[in-house]
Amino acid sequence: MNKAKIGVVGGTGYTGSELLRLLTQHPFAEVTAVTSRADAGTRVDAMFPHLRGRLDLTFTAPDEAPLDGCDLVFFATPNGTAMHQAGALLAAGVRVVDLAADFRIKDVALWEHWYGMRHAAPALVADAVYGLPEINREAIRGARLVANPGCYPTAVTVGLLPLIEAGVADAGRIIADVKSGISGAGRKASTALLMAEAGESFKAYSVGGHRHQPEIRGNIKAATGQDIGLTFVPHLLPMVRGIEATIYAPRVRDDVDLEGLFMSRYQAEPFVDVMPAGMPVETRSVRGTNLCRVSVTEPLDGGVIVVQSVIDNLVKGAAGQAVQNMNLMLGFDEGSGLSLPALVP
Amino acid sequence: MNKAKIGVVGGTGYTGSELLRLLTQHPFAEVTAVTSRADAGTRVDAMFPHLRGRLDLTFTAPDEAPLDGCDLVFFATPNGTAMHQAGALLAAGVRVVDLAADFRIKDVALWEHWYGMRHAAPALVADAVYGLPEINREAIRGARLVANPGCYPTAVTVGLLPLIEAGVADAGRIIADVKSGISGAGRKASTALLMAEAGESFKAYSVGGHRHQPEIRGNIKAATGQDIGLTFVPHLLPMVRGIEATIYAPRVRDDVDLEGLFMSRYQAEPFVDVMPAGMPVETRSVRGTNLCRVSVTEPLDGGVIVVQSVIDNLVKGAAGQAVQNMNLMLGFDEGSGLSLPALVP
Amino acid sequence: MNKAKIGVVGGTGYTGSELLRLLTQHPFAEVTAVTSRADAGTRVDAMFPHLRGRLDLTFTAPDEAPLDGCDLVFFATPNGTAMHQAGALLAAGVRVVDLAADFRIKDVALWEHWYGMRHAAPALVADAVYGLPEINREAIRGARLVANPGCYPTAVTVGLLPLIEAGVADAGRIIADVKSGISGAGRKASTALLMAEAGESFKAYSVGGHRHQPEIRGNIKAATGQDIGLTFVPHLLPMVRGIEATIYAPRVRDDVDLEGLFMSRYQAEPFVDVMPAGMPVETRSVRGTNLCRVSVTEPLDGGVIVVQSVIDNLVKGAAGQAVQNMNLMLGFDEGSGLSLPALVP
Amino acid sequence: MNKAKIGVVGGTGYTGSELLRLLTQHPFAEVTAVTSRADAGTRVDAMFPHLRGRLDLTFTAPDEAPLDGCDLVFFATPNGTAMHQAGALLAAGVRVVDLAADFRIKDVALWEHWYGMRHAAPALVADAVYGLPEINREAIRGARLVANPGCYPTAVTVGLLPLIEAGVADAGRIIADVKSGISGAGRKASTALLMAEAGESFKAYSVGGHRHQPEIRGNIKAATGQDIGLTFVPHLLPMVRGIEATIYAPRVRDDVDLEGLFMSRYQAEPFVDVMPAGMPVETRSVRGTNLCRVSVTEPLDGGVIVVQSVIDNLVKGAAGQAVQNMNLMLGFDEGSGLSLPALVP
Repeated sequence: MNKAKIGVVGGTGYTGSELLRLLTQHPFAEVTAVTSRADAGTRVDAMFPHLRGRLDLTFTAPDEAPLDGCDLVFFATPNGTAMHQAGALLAAGVRVVDLAADFRIKDVALWEHWYGMRHAAPALVADAVYGLPEINREAIRGARLVANPGCYPTAVTVGLLPLIEAGVADAGRIIADVKSGISGAGRKASTALLMAEAGESFKAYSVGGHRHQPEIRGNIKAATGQDIGLTFVPHLLPMVRGIEATIYAPRVRDDVDLEGLFMSRYQAEPFVDVMPAGMPVETRSVRGTNLCRVSVTEPLDGGVIVVQSVIDNLVKGAAGQAVQNMNLMLGFDEGSGLSLPALVP
Repeated sequence: MNKAKIGVVGGTGYTGSELLRLLTQHPFAEVTAVTSRADAGTRVDAMFPHLRGRLDLTFTAPDEAPLDGCDLVFFATPNGTAMHQAGALLAAGVRVVDLAADFRIKDVALWEHWYGMRHAAPALVADAVYGLPEINREAIRGARLVANPGCYPTAVTVGLLPLIEAGVADAGRIIADVKSGISGAGRKASTALLMAEAGESFKAYSVGGHRHQPEIRGNIKAATGQDIGLTFVPHLLPMVRGIEATIYAPRVRDDVDLEGLFMSRYQAEPFVDVMPAGMPVETRSVRGTNLCRVSVTEPLDGGVIVVQSVIDNLVKGAAGQAVQNMNLMLGFDEGSGLSLPALVP
Repeated sequence: MNKAKIGVVGGTGYTGSELLRLLTQHPFAEVTAVTSRADAGTRVDAMFPHLRGRLDLTFTAPDEAPLDGCDLVFFATPNGTAMHQAGALLAAGVRVVDLAADFRIKDVALWEHWYGMRHAAPALVADAVYGLPEINREAIRGARLVANPGCYPTAVTVGLLPLIEAGVADAGRIIADVKSGISGAGRKASTALLMAEAGESFKAYSVGGHRHQPEIRGNIKAATGQDIGLTFVPHLLPMVRGIEATIYAPRVRDDVDLEGLFMSRYQAEPFVDVMPAGMPVETRSVRGTNLCRVSVTEPLDGGVIVVQSVIDNLVKGAAGQAVQNMNLMLGFDEGSGLSLPALVP
Repeated sequence: MNKAKIGVVGGTGYTGSELLRLLTQHPFAEVTAVTSRADAGTRVDAMFPHLRGRLDLTFTAPDEAPLDGCDLVFFATPNGTAMHQAGALLAAGVRVVDLAADFRIKDVALWEHWYGMRHAAPALVADAVYGLPEINREAIRGARLVANPGCYPTAVTVGLLPLIEAGVADAGRIIADVKSGISGAGRKASTALLMAEAGESFKAYSVGGHRHQPEIRGNIKAATGQDIGLTFVPHLLPMVRGIEATIYAPRVRDDVDLEGLFMSRYQAEPFVDVMPAGMPVETRSVRGTNLCRVSVTEPLDGGVIVVQSVIDNLVKGAAGQAVQNMNLMLGFDEGSGLSLPALVP
């Protein structure tokens, strides 16, 4: 079988390089073009020495890249880029997965509010499928355009969904306290992301409001029909990879075994692992993998269900989930190229 | 003026060494005895080279230390030690500050439940004053025995108190998502605390229940008369020093300006700094200091008040607060020896 | 083809768990027994949650493990263990790879000096093959007993060898300044290895003398016939994985192109990558992989050649090299199971 | 006594903010002006929240700052700034300490080679005193213009000097393998300094040649009259603060006790602490302090002396040494404002 031809637009960031890391050992896919406007002409492995010997490609200017000949193109670009370019590729018969936010929110006005720009392709928003296989697997299989989920929304949606589906929690009073390693902020020169600023310290940010809050609300609404009330506070961890979400949900039904509920909901999911009570749910246990590990507890004093959910923000939170979506879209086994073991310690 | 003579029982852990760090530059106090059963005969600065040139003392066996001649003795020992020894010192006229938990909880049965041992001196529990100056300053001044607060309870109580005092939040549905640097777990040989285990990872622990939950509930009850419902989940940060508490409280009154409320409550407090909206509340900004920095926000979508509270777990969360209590007990200026600037970056 | 049956003695440390990580995705080998005296009866994935879904085994007491039926047994035990058990396994026709130091040094008296114990099986020392494929590949293929190299000796030997082989450097005056992540010290409860001790700090250790110095000298002697003078100073890095060696060698011949020398020496080596001048040689570029990346420079002012060599101490420095040796011993392709990409960032 | 009026030019970097941290608790000095072209009008404690309550100043544009009225001005600016502005201040009777490199190297052509620009004030270079009190104390007392040493040169010069002065080592074959925390690279938006790039990794840099090599050679020449041969390789540590230098020097005289030599050389130095053999020389033991801790060893196999030297790069390596110089220049006790204890852990 010939391998599928894959293009990566914007390959110089962390989601781009992580896509390359995963795709270079994918059995059915081959990267044939990686674009970068600023670094056109540079060998990919000169910028990313860890890919030496794995990828014999040079960054190409976007206009000169043979993207039309690809079976699928990933956009690992800043928000607001894919919406300008996806249409032409789709018209040429190329499937598209956008790892940025351009097609994640169905309500275009809401999107424009949170992302601070006019949407260039609102018609495509309606066609796009939100690429969280745990809620949209069948739609993804048939999709031409997939909106890859945000990192926090992946962790929170997987952790919260069983409670809302089963009506176990009060959907109006959900709290998600989420924490991310610094690679989630991207590979951009910014004083705030320096090791001397972010190392050995911890803080919340965007407490007043964060773009991923409406994305999560949209996910739960789409999957269950319910509107939720969600207080969402992100924090920055002094480490590189990993997201942990601790979700608090007031319990409204006592007749459901919580661990059983999660086991049952996710037993067929290849990338969700429900942890037995008492086992640590730590970010490192999923480092480098496409897994989401979750645990559910009802602490002493009762009344509030606590869910812990961990992912690697660059894998299940970005590039790994994108490959999972690609596998579904192109008819490959869903786990192809995603069997890497976690790097511990 | 002669300096006060100070003893430190159990000086080989992090709270002990932090006490020594602070006391060696205190203008009115002098450490005259440091005990350690296991390390008797070892120079203090051989175990703690960072104290070289600052402290000319050797660890003494507890039985041989001249503690009776001290003006005040700190217990920087594991839980369950001070309750055996405090009585004799108090009888000898020595003031005592226990940095462990022996005297923190007034309900002895509740204490015995959480700490898994019989209390050896229940009569002293009633006499002990809980050493959080922000709620108990006057009582501390006259106290013979002070129970130094836990690290998490300090951060959460300071952050939550104004909301409960003012009746702004629903006291029955409080959530505290707290995170601590690893020095909070102490200086003990334990696989779980190894850098290769705790570095570059993040997790919740004791989700089912933690000893600091009843301590916080007790604090709020003592200060306001109100029982609170509190879901309390601690997490372990991949860094050495610092605690951050993110507190979620459903809002029940809209007629109070939140920032104004906090400013007013803490304007006279020397070690609480209410941050203006929009400024980062990060653990490093209090590293090495006795400060608690707090910020209050009501995120978009509303209805839930979010408080961030940061301390250095070894200073305001342990040794620094102990020195603050000592200053009050011995009639010194409350901030004596506590004017060190934060170490940033 | 049936997979080879593999046993791991002492599977609860970092080299043991790393062996399991690598072997669970090896195409031709299958772990059939993992022993632990202390943790017999515990599921492997209960101790190592990152292996959930990858390994369905329980730790067995050493006496009850079916090691005799294995094709090859790895000892991931403390020094001084394999020397007691390897003989019986070899007699039963089982191949053995010892990841500890028992069989690394041919001079038994020297070994006993550095390791502070009597050697229990000096006869086996003579038979053992030192498992550094870059110098001993053919001997490893035929070996029954392989001594897997130390982590520092791997990095330093690969970096230094071309210079000594070619007579480019003064062999009598070599300096190796080496630095290791903390996982190299093993998974044992020790105060010195706590994150609160080792985090955010850096120091040299064993400056007066370290066991790996004679091992390196022995390697160079065995490979080139030359005795070297070696000053070797190890340091502890505040991170989990990775070794960097900076090697200083006085230049004695100017007629050799250094980069060309290294390229030529290692062009056929699957796991040595000679970096072009000017590219960063950083530990993360080999994290999780079996690669050794090296670079050679002659700084301004001249006269001293500087080699940088980086490995992942748990992979090329331990478990990965052990698998490489296994592949050679059992006739598999040398790189089987070792194609994992580096985890960056 | 009125406090001395102090100006800080370029207060938005790490050396600038560290100067402010130290000066806000100096008994005899007061910061009266802090300049920043880019941030004029911003309160200092809005940029540096850790200084809240300690400094009531706003960044001023350089042209509008009352620097002429200061007793002493620190330049915490990039290289090439102070040389344009120092002359006018000196003419106005203001003393100047430059924390950058403009006046460190007496040979202007050599300086221009390494710093890649023409020197704007070569006449001042001759007048400037190199501010390492351990070699230049008396000259500093009388100086109008002090060149504050580089961070690496401070650690290496203090560690190497006794060996060269005593003729114990072969001055022609010195090797310094140095490692720095990332704050040494400054507070500038740069991809290479991101936590996601520099965290959990280690590498050498500038192996081919680094500006601090000629500075160190100049120091030793000035202090001893000897030219040294020096191979100098810097490395980047995955932590925020601290420098460690491991210095290798071939021994040429056996009739000198090394530890005694160092003890004797530095017994009167307030900020050099010679560690007894066997004690750890770790960067954290000097964190936040102006100390340099050194240790000297001759490893097994002999012939090479190994010196370890640790400093906090922002204190003894920059701002602390600048304050020490200021104290000498203005006639204060040399240790004024520099008695802060180390922050451990």
